[in-house]
Amino acid sequence: MASINSVISSDRVEGTDVYNPNGDKLGSIDDLMIDKISGQVRYAVLEFGGFLGIGTDRYPIPWNVLTYDPGFEGYVVPISQEQIEGAPRYSSEAVPEYDDAYSTSVNRYYGL
Amino acid sequence: MASINSVISSDRVEGTDVYNPNGDKLGSIDDLMIDKISGQVRYAVLEFGGFLGIGTDRYPIPWNVLTYDPGFEGYVVPISQEQIEGAPRYSSEAVPEYDDAYSTSVNRYYGL
Repeated sequence: MASINSVISSDRVEGTDVYNPNGDKLGSIDDLMIDKISGQVRYAVLEFGGFLGIGTDRYPIPWNVLTYDPGFEGYVVPISQEQIEGAPRYSSEAVPEYDDAYSTSVNRYYGL
Repeated sequence: MASINSVISSDRVEGTDVYNPNGDKLGSIDDLMIDKISGQVRYAVLEFGGFLGIGTDRYPIPWNVLTYDPGFEGYVVPISQEQIEGAPRYSSEAVPEYDDAYSTSVNRYYGL
């Protein structure tokens, strides 16, 4: 079965806005965390908060919970503003090891 | 089984040098082509040729044929200089549809 545009470039994903289903902008995608062996994108890292790019935090979002919404011209994550405020995050200067324990905790937060 | 640093960020992959097994530098990774539904990285797009970044061509390399080599501080693709010169490519202004036909032709070139 032929499929058109079945791929998207990482350049296009990076910088794309992320919303919740209400249309509240949560932030934008800073970069992607890719499983080294399988090449699977595990997380899109959401950049949010701070001022003029200074002091922004990073929120790993499991790829599976992102849906692209053409109407919003961005991704939608099905969580509330309160849920994103309590979500796992780190500052850009303190990127954690994405080991099994960390990945499991992030996945659990998003219901996976 | 705990695994440390089992992920790599797309920011780190982009710009990484790519070599053949002889240590000849083929180019560097420009960006990644990601399957929209599964989130699987299908291709690393190699940037090569041109002068001062002008006129460079893009060579999609299946993720599966890239191996990171700490000695080279870059990725290794197990093909010869002649093979890369004959490899599927496009100019940055003429990115093709990555449909099944195109993907199949690229994968076949790399023996997949």
